[in-house]
Amino acid sequence: MRLRKKPWVAEALAGYGDIVLKADDYKGQWRELLGNNLPLHVEVGTGKGQFIAGMAERYKGELNFIGLEAQQDVLIYAAKKVREQQLNNVRLLVFNINDILDLFAPGEVERLYINFCDPWPKNRHARRRLTHSGFLAKYRTVLVPGGQVYFKTDNEKLFEFSLNQFADSGAKLANITFDLHNSGYQGNIMTEYETRFSSRGMRIYRCEITLG
Amino acid sequence: MRLRKKPWVAEALAGYGDIVLKADDYKGQWRELLGNNLPLHVEVGTGKGQFIAGMAERYKGELNFIGLEAQQDVLIYAAKKVREQQLNNVRLLVFNINDILDLFAPGEVERLYINFCDPWPKNRHARRRLTHSGFLAKYRTVLVPGGQVYFKTDNEKLFEFSLNQFADSGAKLANITFDLHNSGYQGNIMTEYETRFSSRGMRIYRCEITLG
Repeated sequence: MRLRKKPWVAEALAGYGDIVLKADDYKGQWRELLGNNLPLHVEVGTGKGQFIAGMAERYKGELNFIGLEAQQDVLIYAAKKVREQQLNNVRLLVFNINDILDLFAPGEVERLYINFCDPWPKNRHARRRLTHSGFLAKYRTVLVPGGQVYFKTDNEKLFEFSLNQFADSGAKLANITFDLHNSGYQGNIMTEYETRFSSRGMRIYRCEITLG
Repeated sequence: MRLRKKPWVAEALAGYGDIVLKADDYKGQWRELLGNNLPLHVEVGTGKGQFIAGMAERYKGELNFIGLEAQQDVLIYAAKKVREQQLNNVRLLVFNINDILDLFAPGEVERLYINFCDPWPKNRHARRRLTHSGFLAKYRTVLVPGGQVYFKTDNEKLFEFSLNQFADSGAKLANITFDLHNSGYQGNIMTEYETRFSSRGMRIYRCEITLG
């Protein structure tokens, strides 16, 4: 999702320096920064933050959350939610996921969430899809042994592609559903995008993988 | 698919004794019976035999095929195809797949094909689906180490269920497609059912699994 650049955002973000961090400082030191030893869960593509705020609220005192989002113009809304809800177990970064190996040390992350990432429908852009094997190799590095990726999308072709990438990478698949909201799955927290599109009758695909 | 029982079939089948075998004789001795050491491929639910006849024709001199079908009233048509096409690498049996461990010795089968099996849509019948973990355990026994199951269906719910059963059983998935006929997959041979339903625009789901 590309938005017109909002000139007020950079300035506004400066007021959220306790929540929205700079990228280059914390590799291997996230637990120190957060002041506890709770497992680190990372959302890739945090958008306006409905999902990460909901998760952080639910797992207060149990989990820490890092939200990564390439577009500062949307991340500002996530920062506002985190402050309003006084969620001290969340940090956010304007960050390009390509560089995830610079952000986390090997084995530092317990789980990754990939929610409604860009499907990049053209074959020649397949490498840009966040479930491409190139990304999976990076995720495997930053995840703890047995670490997981939870993946949701409304794009069937992307889901089909992703299942194959997961399987070909030797990941263990689980809880595959072609229709999350009618699957009986408990405890789903919706993203903004998910709320909007599922209300129009779009199906949500989801699965969990364990990267060996 | 249940058909009205055709009284002439039992008699007609007797004329195909070289093709349609009795179940109880060949466990552990299929290669002997077929007179060669070619890999044994087994179709579960052979129906009227379009798939197995097409495969046997294509892989003459390379593979042997056993077709299992619970309904003798349809298997007669498969037997006719095999004779007309002079396929000496096919044998057929009227057989209930529940008893597959009585039919093949451990490691005797190279690959299984499950084509358009009954979806048994009610949850309380899940165990009857031929991709249920109970069946997978039996398949694992009769398959060689690294043996495969190739699965096709037009039923999305069955496909979703099956992917989960495969993943939960520790099978390695490959070549997952949600639309076989538009997937670029080469070399597909259609079943009668597949020909009929895909011509009406139904999508065909397919995947391959390797049972550890």
